[in-house]
Amino acid sequence: MRSGFKELISIDEAVDGAVRHITQVPKTISVETGSSLGRVLASDVVSSVDVPSFNRSAVDGYAVRSSDTFGASYTNPITLRLVGAALTGHGWRGKVGPGEAVEISTGAPLPEGADAVVMYEDARQNGELIEVLKPVAPLGNVSRKGEDVAAGDVIIKRGTRIRPWHVAILASMGVRRVDVFNMDIVLYSTGDELVDLESTGSLGEGRIINSTRFVVVGSLEEDGISVTYGGILPDDEDVIRQRVSDGLKQFDSVILTGGSSVGAPDATIRAIQSLSPEYLVHGTSIRPGRPNSVAVINGKPVFSLSGFPVAALTGVEALVKPVLFKLMGTEALPKPTVKGLLTRRVATPINTRSFVRVKVFERGGNIYVEPLALTGSGVLSTLIKGNGILVVPENREGFDEGEVVEVELIGPLVREY
Amino acid sequence: MRSGFKELISIDEAVDGAVRHITQVPKTISVETGSSLGRVLASDVVSSVDVPSFNRSAVDGYAVRSSDTFGASYTNPITLRLVGAALTGHGWRGKVGPGEAVEISTGAPLPEGADAVVMYEDARQNGELIEVLKPVAPLGNVSRKGEDVAAGDVIIKRGTRIRPWHVAILASMGVRRVDVFNMDIVLYSTGDELVDLESTGSLGEGRIINSTRFVVVGSLEEDGISVTYGGILPDDEDVIRQRVSDGLKQFDSVILTGGSSVGAPDATIRAIQSLSPEYLVHGTSIRPGRPNSVAVINGKPVFSLSGFPVAALTGVEALVKPVLFKLMGTEALPKPTVKGLLTRRVATPINTRSFVRVKVFERGGNIYVEPLALTGSGVLSTLIKGNGILVVPENREGFDEGEVVEVELIGPLVREY
Repeated sequence: MRSGFKELISIDEAVDGAVRHITQVPKTISVETGSSLGRVLASDVVSSVDVPSFNRSAVDGYAVRSSDTFGASYTNPITLRLVGAALTGHGWRGKVGPGEAVEISTGAPLPEGADAVVMYEDARQNGELIEVLKPVAPLGNVSRKGEDVAAGDVIIKRGTRIRPWHVAILASMGVRRVDVFNMDIVLYSTGDELVDLESTGSLGEGRIINSTRFVVVGSLEEDGISVTYGGILPDDEDVIRQRVSDGLKQFDSVILTGGSSVGAPDATIRAIQSLSPEYLVHGTSIRPGRPNSVAVINGKPVFSLSGFPVAALTGVEALVKPVLFKLMGTEALPKPTVKGLLTRRVATPINTRSFVRVKVFERGGNIYVEPLALTGSGVLSTLIKGNGILVVPENREGFDEGEVVEVELIGPLVREY
Repeated sequence: MRSGFKELISIDEAVDGAVRHITQVPKTISVETGSSLGRVLASDVVSSVDVPSFNRSAVDGYAVRSSDTFGASYTNPITLRLVGAALTGHGWRGKVGPGEAVEISTGAPLPEGADAVVMYEDARQNGELIEVLKPVAPLGNVSRKGEDVAAGDVIIKRGTRIRPWHVAILASMGVRRVDVFNMDIVLYSTGDELVDLESTGSLGEGRIINSTRFVVVGSLEEDGISVTYGGILPDDEDVIRQRVSDGLKQFDSVILTGGSSVGAPDATIRAIQSLSPEYLVHGTSIRPGRPNSVAVINGKPVFSLSGFPVAALTGVEALVKPVLFKLMGTEALPKPTVKGLLTRRVATPINTRSFVRVKVFERGGNIYVEPLALTGSGVLSTLIKGNGILVVPENREGFDEGEVVEVELIGPLVREY
């Protein structure tokens, strides 16, 4: 009888251990601000300008000297003389004197002399004259220069995942380029049985299409991390060792899939071991995905993931992303979750973090969580039918039927009536 | 006094009304499966193959004739003769006869003659002989041909947003290309005050950088919808009309930002009205973003959004995406949410859906939701400090201090200790 993975360590220990041993600093590049969406900022951005860069009207109305309006009321309006119009983008060149007003659009620069804006709703216009019906305080209805962001402020911190509004903030401050992390990662899929989707010809007997590469590449791409696919390697320790060794010269990290079965052809782990890693965790206490492993070689992370798509995905989420995120000083974006009633008992091993595919549906106003039957970690149909993942923590052996559980939603809620 | 938007209709009515009037069918293109991540599938994908395509072992062990193992036990093991090895990707060419077994790896094709697999754990090997310690049923530990997906099954439905596991499923079935929606959308920013980030030279007085385009383009891009930026247009009704009219010949939809202020330069809406829209909602009951409008011209949607980034973002989320998603038969992916205690009262107008920027933080094991002060819809700093959005529905005038509210998380939770 062959032994399995005897000393499984917890996934959090594996992540922390790997990060402690990694010495390679992730590469950064400068990109145009407009192309930075989804990347992780590699240095603090400090504002060199005030936003707004000038005092501007926050409403549509009349720019005035606020002291002229003091005491105004509906019963005792104060009359001012209209001397011009300040439109957004155009401004008005003159100076607002005592007893004068200038019509002004939202966003237009406040003319010289004026220090506040009376909203249309608080005035009546009568030809060249306006009647102010309510007083306005100094700087009332004015967006002050630097009010939004002042020059010298740290605007966006290193480690921030750039979302659309960050791009807008950077643009509004005139920041044309930003430094973002740009880890170079290569993925090799090992397995004599694998054929790439792009290869022509029919599948030979016993051959399967390499689908696992797509969950690895796609899942990282969704988090703004691009991966170079290096192709399929045979289950040959020497070949794998050579490619990992070469890969580490050119890339910041190497990811391998397949080859970590408990069975005979375990060339990947032998290849990694032969490269004298500074750190190696062979097998982690997650399910599916027990074969998922991490090593540090020449100060760089090397991941060896299951060849089965579902198990590899667990490895990417629980092992690869946490390590890479820590290196970049960032964290995962929040995940959508929902609470529901478990329709069936879920039994999982103790001391293992289990990721159970579930179908989450709404019926009669209640939300239910139905565990999907799994006969193997390669079962793709659970990924088709499932729209959620129930994580069972290490200190539990599952959940009971009828328990309320919190589930990560990976697709729209199914509504049944 | 100028009138505002007198007849604001609800955002849901505006979305439904627009969709009812749109006759343009969204364009589709065929893309390589490996490049389909994030797109929306435009037609059902039906499997032409069985997955797995052959009976294969689900475990590491010994392929056997199940009837040979009936009656086996730890005390009365049944001895079989090892006649070969079936490795993943290689198989074994012979036929398993009565009293024979073949060593087999997970994923390897079940050899002819065998109909089940005995796990290593349930057998003892002794040179050329193995002792089976437990019986195995027919098809025990075997992943059957077509078990995961059968030929003819609808695998992924039209309208599905393609996630990494969908790509893997398609690949595993040998699907090399898929049809996805490919709406051609153009964005024009109107406003005499606007300057593009890429333009050289210093900002003139009263000029501001067009940052709103980046929230519109980025927010749609995060949902897999690409937008062509058409540049800045002056606040000139004739120019805008001409560009919208030309845009509608080439594109499936036109988005305009800016120009929908309550104030004087409202050239955008006049331009849209002059094109005789089949449907027009000028102003919607959302806040910020009241100027956000939608029209249908020549059967195609035309959106006119606020020129302020925060208000435009609300328009994209509440108006543009719902319309485009409905046209593609898809829906928004679930959004991450969290519940917390409101630290301050939030007051909003009735009959208006209000989107309040908040900071969500954890302190002493509790989660708190702090509304951010807003002095205008252009205030970018609320986007920097905020990591959540509190939506106040139409039938409420806000929430009280201390109420538990559910908030959409747009960034990581802030942890304070």
